[in-house]
Amino acid sequence: MTVQRKLRFGQIGGGRESFIGATHRRAATFDGRVELVAGALSRTPQKARQSGTDLFLPVQRIHDNWQQMLEHELALPESERIDFVSIATPNHAHFAPALAFVENGFHVIVDKPMVTNSEEASALIAAVERHDVFFAVSYNYTGYPMVKQAQHIVQTGQLGEVQRVVVEYPQSWLREKIEAEGQKQALWRTDPVLSGKVGAVGDIGTHGENLMSFITGLKIESLCADLHTFVPGRQVDDDVSLLLRFAGGARGILWVSQVATGEENGLNIRVYGTTGGLRWRQDEPNLLHVQPAGKPDQVLRRGNPYLCPAAARATHIAAGLNEAFFEAFGNIYLNFTDTIRARLEDRSPSKLESDFPTVKDGARGVTFM
Amino acid sequence: MTVQRKLRFGQIGGGRESFIGATHRRAATFDGRVELVAGALSRTPQKARQSGTDLFLPVQRIHDNWQQMLEHELALPESERIDFVSIATPNHAHFAPALAFVENGFHVIVDKPMVTNSEEASALIAAVERHDVFFAVSYNYTGYPMVKQAQHIVQTGQLGEVQRVVVEYPQSWLREKIEAEGQKQALWRTDPVLSGKVGAVGDIGTHGENLMSFITGLKIESLCADLHTFVPGRQVDDDVSLLLRFAGGARGILWVSQVATGEENGLNIRVYGTTGGLRWRQDEPNLLHVQPAGKPDQVLRRGNPYLCPAAARATHIAAGLNEAFFEAFGNIYLNFTDTIRARLEDRSPSKLESDFPTVKDGARGVTFM
Amino acid sequence: MTVQRKLRFGQIGGGRESFIGATHRRAATFDGRVELVAGALSRTPQKARQSGTDLFLPVQRIHDNWQQMLEHELALPESERIDFVSIATPNHAHFAPALAFVENGFHVIVDKPMVTNSEEASALIAAVERHDVFFAVSYNYTGYPMVKQAQHIVQTGQLGEVQRVVVEYPQSWLREKIEAEGQKQALWRTDPVLSGKVGAVGDIGTHGENLMSFITGLKIESLCADLHTFVPGRQVDDDVSLLLRFAGGARGILWVSQVATGEENGLNIRVYGTTGGLRWRQDEPNLLHVQPAGKPDQVLRRGNPYLCPAAARATHIAAGLNEAFFEAFGNIYLNFTDTIRARLEDRSPSKLESDFPTVKDGARGVTFM
Amino acid sequence: MTVQRKLRFGQIGGGRESFIGATHRRAATFDGRVELVAGALSRTPQKARQSGTDLFLPVQRIHDNWQQMLEHELALPESERIDFVSIATPNHAHFAPALAFVENGFHVIVDKPMVTNSEEASALIAAVERHDVFFAVSYNYTGYPMVKQAQHIVQTGQLGEVQRVVVEYPQSWLREKIEAEGQKQALWRTDPVLSGKVGAVGDIGTHGENLMSFITGLKIESLCADLHTFVPGRQVDDDVSLLLRFAGGARGILWVSQVATGEENGLNIRVYGTTGGLRWRQDEPNLLHVQPAGKPDQVLRRGNPYLCPAAARATHIAAGLNEAFFEAFGNIYLNFTDTIRARLEDRSPSKLESDFPTVKDGARGVTFM
Repeated sequence: MTVQRKLRFGQIGGGRESFIGATHRRAATFDGRVELVAGALSRTPQKARQSGTDLFLPVQRIHDNWQQMLEHELALPESERIDFVSIATPNHAHFAPALAFVENGFHVIVDKPMVTNSEEASALIAAVERHDVFFAVSYNYTGYPMVKQAQHIVQTGQLGEVQRVVVEYPQSWLREKIEAEGQKQALWRTDPVLSGKVGAVGDIGTHGENLMSFITGLKIESLCADLHTFVPGRQVDDDVSLLLRFAGGARGILWVSQVATGEENGLNIRVYGTTGGLRWRQDEPNLLHVQPAGKPDQVLRRGNPYLCPAAARATHIAAGLNEAFFEAFGNIYLNFTDTIRARLEDRSPSKLESDFPTVKDGARGVTFM
Repeated sequence: MTVQRKLRFGQIGGGRESFIGATHRRAATFDGRVELVAGALSRTPQKARQSGTDLFLPVQRIHDNWQQMLEHELALPESERIDFVSIATPNHAHFAPALAFVENGFHVIVDKPMVTNSEEASALIAAVERHDVFFAVSYNYTGYPMVKQAQHIVQTGQLGEVQRVVVEYPQSWLREKIEAEGQKQALWRTDPVLSGKVGAVGDIGTHGENLMSFITGLKIESLCADLHTFVPGRQVDDDVSLLLRFAGGARGILWVSQVATGEENGLNIRVYGTTGGLRWRQDEPNLLHVQPAGKPDQVLRRGNPYLCPAAARATHIAAGLNEAFFEAFGNIYLNFTDTIRARLEDRSPSKLESDFPTVKDGARGVTFM
Repeated sequence: MTVQRKLRFGQIGGGRESFIGATHRRAATFDGRVELVAGALSRTPQKARQSGTDLFLPVQRIHDNWQQMLEHELALPESERIDFVSIATPNHAHFAPALAFVENGFHVIVDKPMVTNSEEASALIAAVERHDVFFAVSYNYTGYPMVKQAQHIVQTGQLGEVQRVVVEYPQSWLREKIEAEGQKQALWRTDPVLSGKVGAVGDIGTHGENLMSFITGLKIESLCADLHTFVPGRQVDDDVSLLLRFAGGARGILWVSQVATGEENGLNIRVYGTTGGLRWRQDEPNLLHVQPAGKPDQVLRRGNPYLCPAAARATHIAAGLNEAFFEAFGNIYLNFTDTIRARLEDRSPSKLESDFPTVKDGARGVTFM
Repeated sequence: MTVQRKLRFGQIGGGRESFIGATHRRAATFDGRVELVAGALSRTPQKARQSGTDLFLPVQRIHDNWQQMLEHELALPESERIDFVSIATPNHAHFAPALAFVENGFHVIVDKPMVTNSEEASALIAAVERHDVFFAVSYNYTGYPMVKQAQHIVQTGQLGEVQRVVVEYPQSWLREKIEAEGQKQALWRTDPVLSGKVGAVGDIGTHGENLMSFITGLKIESLCADLHTFVPGRQVDDDVSLLLRFAGGARGILWVSQVATGEENGLNIRVYGTTGGLRWRQDEPNLLHVQPAGKPDQVLRRGNPYLCPAAARATHIAAGLNEAFFEAFGNIYLNFTDTIRARLEDRSPSKLESDFPTVKDGARGVTFM
């Protein structure tokens, strides 16, 4: 039995001016098999309504807040309800709606970092297990085909034993104290209350941690951190460097900065093993550089038959025609929604369909912070 | 007055196995303001129906052929009809539906090359003018923000007088005679009847011509061409090199190949003027290299405030987070549909909204072939 | 028997202000096994003397002209004479001294293009054979290890049958009419009398032709050329594009320009065969990109054990530590002088030692012009 | 008065099989104004003699050890003596000959690290001052024109206040325990006695420290280091990561490794200031990337008129024609020997001539280790 309809979702947060909200919507609808049907798109009721109108939502499904949306959905016949909810609010406002929707049996996808402390993380894990729903965290960089290929290369032992990892995520958009000028993105990210006390380490450090963990599978055993705030008067860290020791003896460096002048979004990772190395950069996402010891370097390109099944599945267009941010973000949604679809079709999702960051990945990120 | 609904479109061709059909759909729906509501998605009725089902189209709007779709739409009240039609059939099957829909007052967007001969091109131009509809050709590479910026740089005289242009579009996917093995993409593109007698020159040469023309505004005055077929038994050209002379004295080279082993989709352009040069590559689409005479090279990056309005409008995400093929393709649709929306709202589209390749650009490409 | 002394040479042309003269000297002495002992370093006697003093030459071996130098050398006991002469004069002044030294039994190395017409080329070939001396032409780009590796890859069939070659050599240093301001390098290169009637095609086109020929072994059968002069009032071509057909059916493009604003010295070559492709750029000389059909791209790096013997011999330093222009130029001298040394030691030079461009390569370049 | 002769030098260490010895000789003689006239080229007398013969040294100036060489030189009339000595022995054997030659009034250039402990460093500083000789340490990477330009950019405030520095120097040549197989380069570098107890940190970490210090002028205030040995049984560190805090509050990361599989010689530096950033890589030495806040990135290229005087002086060839390792190494010698030449000519060396790493830079490196 196949489900002969688009999956339906509602969104919490992500209205006008939100960058990440629009991104979640694009990602969800990328393949034309999912549609947005409901929203509580802002903490400010008026803005929530305007944002819903912008998106051509039916009036009765434009809500002032997530509680209202939840109530409305539960009142609908099950066959008309949303299949899942997408949460794109600031960090501190993830937990409450996530838990409430999970506890009412809805699948949930939430932006990273999942929540702001370990208690919330544990509560979510427990609720997800209790209610047997699917829960994803949008660590979007693991949606890139070549990141999946990197994972495959490590997992199949092509690098030998991994000994050294270097991850960087330099940006510069917080170079000036733009939160003082009311820039919305900066405002909540640098407000300890809304962001959960963390700055760069939560906003982009968690991406670095997740990417490293996804590709190498290594577990951090101990670390030495230098959290620093370069912009005077800022209340959270904006530049963080860490030396890492992994279980088993591997070593790592993680550096993230939001004040590295001239850098835009320089996420990159290098992994060195006993028989090979690899490197990937967010700004050349369709390439994966592999350096087998003693042989010519290799450049693997997205879309080619020599790639692993997970990379192939995450590919939407022929080799040579680039994919980028939205496609990778969409891949998180693709697998999350195909997993939901599998359940609607009364079958187990395949291993490839299940390839998305779960509540446990989200919890590990919270621990890291 | 704003139009408080999504625009609606129908698609002709582009069903299962079609790459370009899915691309048009993604491009059209990229911003969540346009929806597919009807389709005549294959020449084969059964496949047309299956494809419509795949896309969750309502049964009554899944058609066996475009004639049926046209008839059905005309029978609907005007307020329920599609706003435009998207044509993604092989080259030879563009003209008939394009003309028919134009003549019935529908806006049309068609894949490139627009048609296969100059008579058809002239007929379309005349019909578009007569019926006062909007008509776009999906030269998608002009949808890239940095291509728009390149145009801006030339138009504002930053390179001085343009003297030399080099455009290349090497691929290798027709390296083997895969049309003999039934590969669908190859099949119609190498069949002189379906493709309109041209091979590489029509499939990708027209992209090169359009990109060159879009950025520089130069008009080809004369040319010396070497059309060659490397793969034995192939019926159309698969490797073409041209020396060009432009009106005003500039010189050009255009090389396209579908048998350049190892190349994937190597479209790139270099423009040299009396006071500066620039270069852009499809595989690094977020960068534009500008070389002012006697000064350090510049690398302009998508998403930055220093870019021109057309580049800014074509940008969907912050600097540093890449955009790629679908976003650029979507920009053709964005401007085409915003132009349609402007008419629905009884206003003139702005110059920025009108920035898409028209029936005249399509005709110039046909002349070039 | 090994020759327990440095080889000795004299230089004709190449004095103060000459770029290429200093380059020949550095190249000759790069390995510490060759020394400059005599010179007729300028057409202007005073400058010839000053230049000799600059280089700490013994007074009796600083000459006013090459005739004087030849006479002086012949008067010395054979054991004290120079082993060879290096000619670094403008193009038109290569032939006379080259022929005279050959006819007196000296080995000769001359800058490219060897001479300015086919008659001179034939006369030189005949003289070299008659007097059984060694004669080299400094096509320095073939001295790069990775160019030798490229040749090896083609010769060992790793690309299958070569079908398409693209060579470019864009520069911009003649963008302005600097010959009118007395710039010495420009002056003779744009003077039809001194340069032999050719501009860009002789100065850098011959490098392109030589590189293409060296790597692929293909022979030009016919060509279509567009020689153009962009800078008003200039007397020779400054931008040249050619479509090439090679014996056997391969196709080629060669574009050279000295007015391509922003380009510095952009020599590069791409070779496409039936089973693979390769590319090399002068500005990344330590890398060779190889693209085997259907497999990941490869990046070969200078200095690694996987390279061919000719590349290994041309390597002076460990992998990762770059070599550049002087080293490659030096490799022409290395093989030329080791060949001379072999004769002094009464043995045949090895095939690797004989790997330098000869009078016949020089003649082919003259034919090309 | 100009000195109308080549400067003369003797070399200690650096015979057959030595990589760095040959490099010092090439560097010294690169401009044709310096010649090798004496040598004590190996600890093993027979090898010392063979090496001298290889280099065509006069028999009476081929010595069994440096003591003999010193004695011989002192016995010569001053006008025939060497002007300076070049020391290319393993680390532990730098101090004794350096001190002895300094104390006898000879100028000295020594490979890095200068010595192996702070006592030796202090003794050398004192001796150099007492005897008023010139003393250089071959931190060759500061010889690159674009490194000098980077220093200029920082010093002229173009980056604002420097806040963050990241330096990396990954290699992989000690990936296997090649010292156990007798590889000469590895042997002494991994022997705590010969290397001075340090591995990667001394061999390449000092290069990183010197490059960072040269460009930014920052002083390390405190650091957190993770020295690790990945190859079992190796007696010195082979992978080192450090978090740095500089006086004034800037932060830094320095990572060096000799076991980073696939890396060849990946030295690179990135500097971030309040108004701009820059980056330079050893494997693209002719480029300098500068990122002014809010403006397009810039790529500065060696050899252009817009560069600073120190970069211009370090340039031997026109823009576009690359320079590499030997040229940069040669620049250390160029300035060192021009400084010596200045003294011979009874004048003060200019600031540009004095631009080479001195005994104090060497001492700072020793402190860093």
